[in-house]
Amino acid sequence: MDIAILFYDDMAALDAIGPWEVLQHLPGVTMHSVGVTPGPKSSEPAGLELVAAESIDDVPSPDVLVVPGGSGESALRRDPNVLEWLRGVDATSQWTTSVCTGSLLLGAAGLLAGKRATSHWLAHDALASFGAQPTLERVVIDGKVITAAGVSSGIDMALTLAARLQGDEIAQTIQLGIEYDPQPPFDAGSPTKAPQFAVDFLRADSRFEVEGV
Amino acid sequence: MDIAILFYDDMAALDAIGPWEVLQHLPGVTMHSVGVTPGPKSSEPAGLELVAAESIDDVPSPDVLVVPGGSGESALRRDPNVLEWLRGVDATSQWTTSVCTGSLLLGAAGLLAGKRATSHWLAHDALASFGAQPTLERVVIDGKVITAAGVSSGIDMALTLAARLQGDEIAQTIQLGIEYDPQPPFDAGSPTKAPQFAVDFLRADSRFEVEGV
Repeated sequence: MDIAILFYDDMAALDAIGPWEVLQHLPGVTMHSVGVTPGPKSSEPAGLELVAAESIDDVPSPDVLVVPGGSGESALRRDPNVLEWLRGVDATSQWTTSVCTGSLLLGAAGLLAGKRATSHWLAHDALASFGAQPTLERVVIDGKVITAAGVSSGIDMALTLAARLQGDEIAQTIQLGIEYDPQPPFDAGSPTKAPQFAVDFLRADSRFEVEGV
Repeated sequence: MDIAILFYDDMAALDAIGPWEVLQHLPGVTMHSVGVTPGPKSSEPAGLELVAAESIDDVPSPDVLVVPGGSGESALRRDPNVLEWLRGVDATSQWTTSVCTGSLLLGAAGLLAGKRATSHWLAHDALASFGAQPTLERVVIDGKVITAAGVSSGIDMALTLAARLQGDEIAQTIQLGIEYDPQPPFDAGSPTKAPQFAVDFLRADSRFEVEGV
């Protein structure tokens, strides 16, 4: 089984690494870090580089696709080769998935029309502009498409996916292996729970502006 | 404020990226990805490369140090230059921290003697061999040393640290920014909660063997 995760400049590192960390432990999988071109991709905002080992052309038909988010997704949405690759992968994939604003890339490729989907909480309007039905759940499954909410939700998505791929026992074993027993010091992780100042601050921060179609 | 995270071959990617994702959003910080030498470091087991932009010699006195874990830490424990660097950093740091078996590196450098500390649940015996007092909490603070449990706990540790550095409001805003509202599909993230087969499987998996002193 081949699992491909798309890497690009100005991605959010945790969007990709959460699923990578989980899925790499599935027995029998081959992980592929792919980019439009191979090489280091700079994550945002602090510039940590993650290396795409292969080009998207090298991996045309993975069984599972994971598209992470980050502000760099808007540039990729304007690259017809990327959109064509996404459509080609989805044509034969077992699962097509995204984390955070990675769902906007799936949307731009036409893969979310009429589907229930999610994204970062600040990107739901943009998500709707691609014909998706924005859904306020952390992990949304519609057919073979799984979309996850912002950044850290990729871990929950990947464990859900791991269970679908190989069963609950293997997913639980991976969860224990990465000791995923989350205990955040605050209960501020969603706009329905966070203090209003945090919601207002992020809504006003231009770095988080997300454009639709 | 300078924050350094140590990168090395056969590290666990999420150990480093969880804290990196959180801490990079603190206003006014400069993030440093450091290695014994600069360049790509291969994470385990699937080989994704993360790039150390600087050498440890370039960053002798960061305000905050984060040491991630992974099987590669045992090789670093035998490198006197690394242990000397860790001691030098700790001499002037505001906070010295670790995730997972990164605490064994701190222990090998003599920085945990007599201190309450934690590590991956499979590494508590090894942790004790360095004179630490293994503690079954997800994030353990003893003086200026913060150690976190396995792999994914670095996110909780980093939010705790963010609050200590710049206050609860900023930590909560970062938590909302990365939408950290964890909803794992199973409650199997610690050995006290996971099914016995998962505990037994990981205990028997030689990849997870951890040696002490």
